[in-house]
Amino acid sequence: MSARLDKLIEFLKFPSISTDSKFKQGIDDCRDWVHAQFTEMGLKSEIYKTPKHDIVVAKNQHKAGRPTLLIYGHYDVQPVDPLNLWTNPPFEPTVRDGKIFARGSADNKGQILAHMLGVKEALADKKDLGINLSFLVEGEEEIGSPNLDAFLESHKDILKCDVVAVSDSGMVGPGIPTLTYALRGIACVEVKIKGPKMDLHSGVYGGGVRNPALAAAQIAASLHNEKNEITIEGFYDGVAEPQQWEKDQWKSLPITEERIKALVGVDSLYGEEGYSYLERVWARPTAEVNGIGGGYQGEGSKTVLPSEALLKLSFRLVPGQNPKDILEKVESHIKGLDLKGLTVNVEMGHSGTPYICDPFSSFAKLALSSLEEVFGKSPCLIREGGSIPVVESFKQLLGADTLLLGLALPDCRCHAPDENFDLDCFEKGIALNKALIANLAK
Amino acid sequence: MSARLDKLIEFLKFPSISTDSKFKQGIDDCRDWVHAQFTEMGLKSEIYKTPKHDIVVAKNQHKAGRPTLLIYGHYDVQPVDPLNLWTNPPFEPTVRDGKIFARGSADNKGQILAHMLGVKEALADKKDLGINLSFLVEGEEEIGSPNLDAFLESHKDILKCDVVAVSDSGMVGPGIPTLTYALRGIACVEVKIKGPKMDLHSGVYGGGVRNPALAAAQIAASLHNEKNEITIEGFYDGVAEPQQWEKDQWKSLPITEERIKALVGVDSLYGEEGYSYLERVWARPTAEVNGIGGGYQGEGSKTVLPSEALLKLSFRLVPGQNPKDILEKVESHIKGLDLKGLTVNVEMGHSGTPYICDPFSSFAKLALSSLEEVFGKSPCLIREGGSIPVVESFKQLLGADTLLLGLALPDCRCHAPDENFDLDCFEKGIALNKALIANLAK
Repeated sequence: MSARLDKLIEFLKFPSISTDSKFKQGIDDCRDWVHAQFTEMGLKSEIYKTPKHDIVVAKNQHKAGRPTLLIYGHYDVQPVDPLNLWTNPPFEPTVRDGKIFARGSADNKGQILAHMLGVKEALADKKDLGINLSFLVEGEEEIGSPNLDAFLESHKDILKCDVVAVSDSGMVGPGIPTLTYALRGIACVEVKIKGPKMDLHSGVYGGGVRNPALAAAQIAASLHNEKNEITIEGFYDGVAEPQQWEKDQWKSLPITEERIKALVGVDSLYGEEGYSYLERVWARPTAEVNGIGGGYQGEGSKTVLPSEALLKLSFRLVPGQNPKDILEKVESHIKGLDLKGLTVNVEMGHSGTPYICDPFSSFAKLALSSLEEVFGKSPCLIREGGSIPVVESFKQLLGADTLLLGLALPDCRCHAPDENFDLDCFEKGIALNKALIANLAK
Repeated sequence: MSARLDKLIEFLKFPSISTDSKFKQGIDDCRDWVHAQFTEMGLKSEIYKTPKHDIVVAKNQHKAGRPTLLIYGHYDVQPVDPLNLWTNPPFEPTVRDGKIFARGSADNKGQILAHMLGVKEALADKKDLGINLSFLVEGEEEIGSPNLDAFLESHKDILKCDVVAVSDSGMVGPGIPTLTYALRGIACVEVKIKGPKMDLHSGVYGGGVRNPALAAAQIAASLHNEKNEITIEGFYDGVAEPQQWEKDQWKSLPITEERIKALVGVDSLYGEEGYSYLERVWARPTAEVNGIGGGYQGEGSKTVLPSEALLKLSFRLVPGQNPKDILEKVESHIKGLDLKGLTVNVEMGHSGTPYICDPFSSFAKLALSSLEEVFGKSPCLIREGGSIPVVESFKQLLGADTLLLGLALPDCRCHAPDENFDLDCFEKGIALNKALIANLAK
């Protein structure tokens, strides 16, 4: 363990924050470290320049007639604010209670390093992996991978593969092997609502001129009915109900409503009628207000009828929905409301296609048996509510499905202070990588 | 004119911004200047200390058997931001096109100075006004007159009066004499909506946990029905319809919907069905969102399910409504909504009682004939949509009605850059003061 942990600590010490140019040195040093690890273990590693942060690709010698596995991860991390909420400094990794605390520990350094060390140890054991292996480790995941699609497009030849493995998601709970086979997509919309050309006195004009802050509220409130179903016409077109085996599987998971309530600190959960919590977050689309703002938000009161307001909406999408189609439907829903006295601008933001793959394909079966070997129990098959856009890119640009083999526990605090990675998950991840390669080689 | 204008320019040069302690010297210098004017014209003037900015009271010698008129105004002004939108610096008064541009020119220095100069000139003409006169000029109006009620309460004896005159409101248009006989009241409410204990990832939790930003929107949207009537139970109890003579009078005013639309920059007005624009802003109560906020409001998108959101609501009230009763009804309306998964805190803010006086009382008739004398035409009788809380204080604490003799034109830009006061209104205001005193003395 000690050598493995030392490597992890080395990796975690780089302040490789991709969004902040002050940390460019941290990013570049971290890139070089990753490159050096691959070279040291005997892979042929190359650093590819991008307009921002570079991509490291490492490969063993590919031979015809062997399956090709592409392992994806990222060496960049989220910012660390608010710093005062960290128990230890975020780039001084500290082990407590079997977990290592540091920015990037779970997302994604701990997880990608488990694969790297698995390959290193497999190579040290027997020189040949028995499969064609490629690593793709980027430095821009936390800023939305702006250069990755172009890179995949222009380097299809060297990235050609049969299947992709990504450990950048979660496990159902400690010791519970998990394969994620579906992700929700996303469509973001920003709505700008303009009324009078200047803020007005709400005494002088109130009741006579349309109030954009109230209109923003009315637009947002129009998205759901009293059953919390989304009212946008055609929104659910093509949405498949979760299958019976999925419902049964999810009911048996140790993710209880009580646990979720305690985790997020609410006394009741909420959402679309007729579905369980997990069905709602994994298999049902949503309409969320990520931001709303208008008028005076400071202390005390200011009796203003504001000139403008804004709404930041996002829609989580499930297989069968298409972001472009949804954005059009959202726009026509909004344009169909009573917008008298307003100028309303609906602007399309980023989007991502929902992803689903067959959890009973031959590759998925190999992943499931690898998980069972390592964890000693039958794996859970889950969906996830979030989006991992790169998975859809692999599907579109490389034609390959992705095995999502998450190693992070629910309390890993990704993106938050005291981010941590369980050291047992780290060990299991190394073993899982070795098992997967061995099973693929068979 | 020149001597009058010189006085106005002197008065306007003081940066007497009451909300900002950096301007304490400007406030104090301005107070001393007002005090000196009163002394110079032969009134007995006194400065009364308050915990913040002082009050100047000036009186002639009161004699039994004569009516007593109290004239109220304020020497403090609003802040000047945004400074870059001013054509001339706000404390360097500049005359253009028959108007003087400076902060405080209309609100309220130009208007109160018209009264001061009227009295000065009347005293210079004939030594005795024929009535008992008191001036009350405060320095805290723009910060909500926090010390005025206590002062009125403790100085009832010296402020005893039969009627109050206040020029701190508007005229219908240039050259149109205007008496305002009713004001809307106000009740402010802040609603804090808390959901999960931290911001959540809208992919991971979206659809399963209540979103406070969406809930804020739903609460705000619940306040009106599709006719733009307010849906709070009992909200309209006691509200009297505007009388037929009022509707007829207002229809004949040169305040057209076209003019309002051009003034505020919208292509249609908006509000409660079945009422004209002026009826809605003068004689109907409102429910406005002065501020709404929750989640991410910066550039781009952040797919967060926010932990909390807030609503700043205010309700403009009309005669027959009582702020305390309305606040209770608002609270029970909100508590009656579906607040599952949330903690909602409804906090009462400041409030003011609506005001109405009889525009056909003997004092009002004297004011109307004074207006007609000076302007050469029959005055308009209007209500105003805003609140002037001091008017209600005069009623409650001194038992006197207030004659609201506004001298500001609709484009005076009170509280905004390029605030201005029409010099013809200034002249007419001086003449009006003299006519009113002469008529009261008869």
